[in-house]
Amino acid sequence: MRSSSRRCVACSADMIGRLCVVGLGLIGGSAARAARLHGLSTEIVGVDPDPGNLARALELGVIDSGSRDLADYATEADLVLLAVPVGAFARVFDELRGRWSAAAVYTDAASTKCSVIEDLRRSHGLIPRNFVPGHPIAGAEQSGVDAANPKLYEGRRVILTPGPECDPRALDTVRTFWTGIGARVALMQPDQHDAVLAATSHLPHVLAYTLTHLLGAKDEQQEIFQYAAGGLRDFSRIASSDPTMWRDICLANRANILPLIDEFRAELDRFADFLRDGSAEQTFEFLAVSRAARQRFLARMDD
Amino acid sequence: MRSSSRRCVACSADMIGRLCVVGLGLIGGSAARAARLHGLSTEIVGVDPDPGNLARALELGVIDSGSRDLADYATEADLVLLAVPVGAFARVFDELRGRWSAAAVYTDAASTKCSVIEDLRRSHGLIPRNFVPGHPIAGAEQSGVDAANPKLYEGRRVILTPGPECDPRALDTVRTFWTGIGARVALMQPDQHDAVLAATSHLPHVLAYTLTHLLGAKDEQQEIFQYAAGGLRDFSRIASSDPTMWRDICLANRANILPLIDEFRAELDRFADFLRDGSAEQTFEFLAVSRAARQRFLARMDD
Repeated sequence: MRSSSRRCVACSADMIGRLCVVGLGLIGGSAARAARLHGLSTEIVGVDPDPGNLARALELGVIDSGSRDLADYATEADLVLLAVPVGAFARVFDELRGRWSAAAVYTDAASTKCSVIEDLRRSHGLIPRNFVPGHPIAGAEQSGVDAANPKLYEGRRVILTPGPECDPRALDTVRTFWTGIGARVALMQPDQHDAVLAATSHLPHVLAYTLTHLLGAKDEQQEIFQYAAGGLRDFSRIASSDPTMWRDICLANRANILPLIDEFRAELDRFADFLRDGSAEQTFEFLAVSRAARQRFLARMDD
Repeated sequence: MRSSSRRCVACSADMIGRLCVVGLGLIGGSAARAARLHGLSTEIVGVDPDPGNLARALELGVIDSGSRDLADYATEADLVLLAVPVGAFARVFDELRGRWSAAAVYTDAASTKCSVIEDLRRSHGLIPRNFVPGHPIAGAEQSGVDAANPKLYEGRRVILTPGPECDPRALDTVRTFWTGIGARVALMQPDQHDAVLAATSHLPHVLAYTLTHLLGAKDEQQEIFQYAAGGLRDFSRIASSDPTMWRDICLANRANILPLIDEFRAELDRFADFLRDGSAEQTFEFLAVSRAARQRFLARMDD
């Protein structure tokens, strides 16, 4: 591995030389724009299978040059950020097999970590020492390079889940990258990451999609949406997320999501019982405890 | 009933003479402020059991005068807007028994309609001809007169559910009031209102409260909230709503909410089955249909 984290000769800030972003969607595009904004890289190259998206990324100045072929760039970079959908990792790792560069550092931005690590192990037979699994906890229901926002990661958490085999210098490079664009890095075990994110992100998405599915069918019969207000708009915002992306996440992390759906259903049944019994006290208590939890969550977010 | 809807001598706009708002929370306070903003009433009086809230409403100029005693004002107004919590209607109607003025028009702003009508029937033995049940579909997770916003109802739907006994002039007065402050009035049967609102508002609240309850318990053990992002914040916003208000709504409309909880659970089970089976196609189809429904809903809201 060559020294992929350098210091700027002028100000001695940490720098990543050549950054290669694979997958120029919202996540990858925003990372590229942020690296540009913070002067973190001397060169930013991009790989995307969609020629229109590549052209757009060049036009917007998100990347300096780009290719549809992973082999053209991913082996010649200091840092390679794999920002492809969860379901595309197996194929990407297969394409990188035999081309994996010992001189580069590799990381990813996927919403699930065990599945990505497992895809890499299955493809390469082991986890290379210069791979650092990562997940920036930021996103929006928009997608595509046009939605790329250089400030998307400012103040956001990025969870890195390096295994015992991971080279500490590779970890340093990835940490340098994310902190350099304003994010806050935390370390976690991959299975812990997947359990936490199933609760804070994947289950809420499943619930929002499920409610919208139910109400959409009712709306077709009775046009109920015209009587909905801002509460439903906010509640269902995440159901506007990309279905391909969320199909991949839901399937990749179903081992954590399915038990949580069971837990949620049990909690919902408990509340339904309070209503069925007409118990004002238990109904109030349930709602008051929920509200207090939400206020605690908001206070957390403002930290 | 005296002529409670008049015309301004200067511009011949429809006017409500003396408006009495019972319950100076967000809903009642905002209606009072809106009436003031639009010059719709010559005098605005308020009733609230909380002396501190009354003083605040006077201080903010939300009302011209106020009392803790319903009897002082509610019988001497042209329009009486009952903006108390759903659970307080039985008591308010009892207090008005024997004092119900034939010269006034009465309406309410509760989120459930059958329960309010039933409370009135139980208290008075019949539904007076000058009562027009109503529900402005607007709200926020804030509460109290300090959150009162004169523009809360602009462009919002107000559903009125007058019965066959309702005096058309009373309906005109209430319609004049809501359209006068910028809202769009729709008519509906009370049971249809309660079914529609159970789907578009009450069920989403139940789900948001239930998820927050579940995650709150997990957060106490594992501090998961620090890894949550904007998606969860928006999804759970409605779980910050007032628990007393939502206890009342949930119990008053449980006849509609409980079957919807069953429908939601069936839909959730269906999605869980797709995940359990690892069916990429069905998972995608479910999410894509949901997303399309949400986009249709957004287009509706922009109307």
